[in-house]
Amino acid sequence: AANKKLLVLPGDGIGPEVMHEVRRVIDWMDRRRALSFEIEEGLVGGGAIDAVGSPCPDETVEKAKAADAVLFGSVGGPKWDSLPFEQRPELGILRLRKDLGLFANLRPALVMDPLVEASSLKPDIVRGVDIMVVRETVGGIYFGEPRGVETLPDGKRRGFDTDVYHEDEIARVARVAFDLARKRRGKVTSVEKANVMQSGRLWRAVVGEVQKAEYPDVALENMYADNCAMQLCSRPKQFDVILGNNLFGDVLSDLAAALTGSLGMLPSATLGAVDPATGKRHALYEPIHGSAPDIAGKGIANPCAQMLSFAMLLRWSFGLEEDAALLETAIEKVLAGGLRTADIMQPGMARVGTSVMGEAVLREL
Amino acid sequence: AANKKLLVLPGDGIGPEVMHEVRRVIDWMDRRRALSFEIEEGLVGGGAIDAVGSPCPDETVEKAKAADAVLFGSVGGPKWDSLPFEQRPELGILRLRKDLGLFANLRPALVMDPLVEASSLKPDIVRGVDIMVVRETVGGIYFGEPRGVETLPDGKRRGFDTDVYHEDEIARVARVAFDLARKRRGKVTSVEKANVMQSGRLWRAVVGEVQKAEYPDVALENMYADNCAMQLCSRPKQFDVILGNNLFGDVLSDLAAALTGSLGMLPSATLGAVDPATGKRHALYEPIHGSAPDIAGKGIANPCAQMLSFAMLLRWSFGLEEDAALLETAIEKVLAGGLRTADIMQPGMARVGTSVMGEAVLREL
Ligand SMILES: CC(C)[C@H](C(=O)O)[C@@H](O)C(=O)O
Ligand SMILES: CC(C)[C@H](C(=O)O)[C@@H](O)C(=O)O
Repeated sequence: AANKKLLVLPGDGIGPEVMHEVRRVIDWMDRRRALSFEIEEGLVGGGAIDAVGSPCPDETVEKAKAADAVLFGSVGGPKWDSLPFEQRPELGILRLRKDLGLFANLRPALVMDPLVEASSLKPDIVRGVDIMVVRETVGGIYFGEPRGVETLPDGKRRGFDTDVYHEDEIARVARVAFDLARKRRGKVTSVEKANVMQSGRLWRAVVGEVQKAEYPDVALENMYADNCAMQLCSRPKQFDVILGNNLFGDVLSDLAAALTGSLGMLPSATLGAVDPATGKRHALYEPIHGSAPDIAGKGIANPCAQMLSFAMLLRWSFGLEEDAALLETAIEKVLAGGLRTADIMQPGMARVGTSVMGEAVLREL
Repeated sequence: AANKKLLVLPGDGIGPEVMHEVRRVIDWMDRRRALSFEIEEGLVGGGAIDAVGSPCPDETVEKAKAADAVLFGSVGGPKWDSLPFEQRPELGILRLRKDLGLFANLRPALVMDPLVEASSLKPDIVRGVDIMVVRETVGGIYFGEPRGVETLPDGKRRGFDTDVYHEDEIARVARVAFDLARKRRGKVTSVEKANVMQSGRLWRAVVGEVQKAEYPDVALENMYADNCAMQLCSRPKQFDVILGNNLFGDVLSDLAAALTGSLGMLPSATLGAVDPATGKRHALYEPIHGSAPDIAGKGIANPCAQMLSFAMLLRWSFGLEEDAALLETAIEKVLAGGLRTADIMQPGMARVGTSVMGEAVLREL
């Protein structure tokens, strides 16, 4: 197979530890499967601030643009918490999304059978939950202008942000959601506050138009964001694909992830548009979990979410369905065999650290 | 006791049914306790649209301003769902909040012992949960200007909203949260997205300043909204008071309510500022649940949230702690006795309708 260019950005906290395990999986794939990767590493987040003074150096953006796919770890930590807004580690991921045009964030919230008990919800409520949250990630209140904190003539401060969506931005991410729903259970729940927000009113209108014109075979349900939070908590099985803007998608995808009880298991993909000239599509893959500074360096972090992010990468960026499934199955088998990292530990199971978990997956492969 | 002026706004859906049961409680208090109410009714929501063409007629606003307290039911239903933005039933409650200056919405999420099993969360996760969400309700993205849906020269649409907070708006609602925390377990969790929003950055700064200057005895924790949604779902007992802006407060208070599993039991209060001249404070009390059009008119709705809203009214607007507690205890006893409406039904309990539940509470009184 042709050389695939991968940019690996371990980032801060547990990022480097869990990425280390993925590198072993990549090496294995390089040797045993018909794949070959050309891997570059890059700086992002707090580590990049320390090294070169920026959470997302231009060099990293250039490398990301040149790569076929980006595998991202996680960024941030108390060390950088008091930095001013414009210099925070989080800007690393925000800039990558924006500069690469990664507008569709796909966040599966899947309850694997061996982990049903890990959830804070009752087993019968979460068993079989399989939700895909599709979140818009380059628009809305995250980037809208004007924004700022101004000081008024009387010395008082006022802070403001703009939530803004163009209909084309809504339509393209809606298509990603409808396409996914077609391959899944055929239902999209589009979430907004059309009852109080104008951008939400447009959101609802455009999603409805796209469905009517292009996806009459997919069921569309509109739901207010507050109600969606409630329903996720009380009856999560009703959902197939949830579609939301940058802000609601952020909160609701984290909620959907949390209800599985196994954050350390959940990957995500953020996809750009297909370039009509080259057929290429920028894409970044990262775990749902953050940099977990409290457990960083202890060797106890769960590497599965990062590995499953790599599986998503194989599937979405390279169409390597078989290799992706191989890795996913290996991880499931390790879990079924009773190994657990601390975050998903249950009575009667064997508690292991990051590298033992990684090794077990390699052995399964 | 002096005559208290109450405005009762039953609204749409199950509003009138559950309000009917509260009226019986009010009558009883009128006769048996040292209280006397002067009650007016008014139009709001879909019913007001049908009757006079506006979801919140001026007359209702005038009556609300003249009243000592407003008891609100719920508004909305499929009949009015296709009306244009400016004519929706929801504007009824939004206008009342705005015109009366009701800036602090207090939403308790309390898990009563007899109802632990009603939650979708595991009993050991929710037993003892007692959270108060304080939500700002007259500012932020709900009212910020500019807002609208515009058509661009090329015919494409763009929708936009402004999220804006003045530091005084943040400080006054923060004080409500800190005051409450002082009477509770002494902790406020302030929620925003200071990592991506400028208004969130100001929010965090101002809440911190108020705590430092005026409430050094109260613990303050800052949390991102996405993380808060996760934590509510996985470890709700860590929270005492949660403070959020209009939008995050909306979503997170509904989530907190949902995790109790007994929405039909939860009241809320929305308070204005104390008028320095009269000592009077506008206030509106309403259940957390909506108008539930699917069960309206069937006589099966749970009247408890509306009754508990009245208890909150007695406590917050009139300082009638004893009468409030009397009503709350009566409701708890009825539940302990095994009566349940459909929404909180459990095996082995007796399923009853709205009026039987109301009667049982009266009997307890
Ligand atoms: C780190 C932060 C800026 C980011 C976001 O809010 O988008 C994170 O919460 C996420 O969801 O990836
Ligand atoms: C009806 C609607 C406008 C309202 C809101 O979003 O504030 C409701 O969800 C609430 O929380 O009271």
